[in-house]
Amino acid sequence: MPTPTLYLEDFAVGQRYRSGRLRVEAAAIKEFAAAFDPQPFHLDDAAAAASFFHGLAASGWHTASLTMRLLVDSEMRPAGGIIGGWADELKWPRAVRPGDELEAEAEVLAVRASESRPGHGFVKFRVTTQNQRGEPVQIVVMNLLVAARPT
Amino acid sequence: MPTPTLYLEDFAVGQRYRSGRLRVEAAAIKEFAAAFDPQPFHLDDAAAAASFFHGLAASGWHTASLTMRLLVDSEMRPAGGIIGGWADELKWPRAVRPGDELEAEAEVLAVRASESRPGHGFVKFRVTTQNQRGEPVQIVVMNLLVAARPT
Repeated sequence: MPTPTLYLEDFAVGQRYRSGRLRVEAAAIKEFAAAFDPQPFHLDDAAAAASFFHGLAASGWHTASLTMRLLVDSEMRPAGGIIGGWADELKWPRAVRPGDELEAEAEVLAVRASESRPGHGFVKFRVTTQNQRGEPVQIVVMNLLVAARPT
Repeated sequence: MPTPTLYLEDFAVGQRYRSGRLRVEAAAIKEFAAAFDPQPFHLDDAAAAASFFHGLAASGWHTASLTMRLLVDSEMRPAGGIIGGWADELKWPRAVRPGDELEAEAEVLAVRASESRPGHGFVKFRVTTQNQRGEPVQIVVMNLLVAARPT
């Protein structure tokens, strides 16, 4: 059965959506860093060992991008797509390491209609990304623009 | 002359650091999206034209990642690297479009010593990324961990 499209009215505080899993290899960490965050602790094992991170660590923006991929591939399918307007908070309590397996859980914190954009509203989610030991590697509180059900 | 390393004591409220420029091509928007945010409005021109975005738009996480690249390549060189602990706020007031040229400006909002981590502190920056028309495409308030000058 295809995953249903979720309209604003389908979201309610407390709902949780869980993603699949995604394994992060050292090569992917270095490839992302070479493009977007070319600092030694994201690129080179020896330099990383001598750094604040004590070993190769993914860029936080890589972790954020992987989290987006987990959400897009999940059953959480708002009408019109996953369109993030803004985040209230974004933190990385722990680095992502080579071989980590990530999964994300999105919990609905609030739902409200938009005043400026009729037929739309905002759903506030806390999205927690964790590694294979259940340790959070990223927590973001994200506000998505979601279409109301057509009348 | 090499860019000097900046210690916690070198940062002061009101300082501004400006990045270079970086042009975003349609191919790069689609490549990032294919890896991390595979939604039609980031991948396909026709689907994007019919979407909320009315045309191809970069993923917000792509904009965030490009902003990190601009900062890493800038003169803003904290001791130990650019290590983001958390963001208080992250917003995308406007989409990034093919052909846009981005630049970022980081303004120091606060500087404080860390209580739990002797010899380190936090510098809070507002980083504004703008396109070639001077329109903001991303605003993030980011807290970086910075080493104090060795005594």
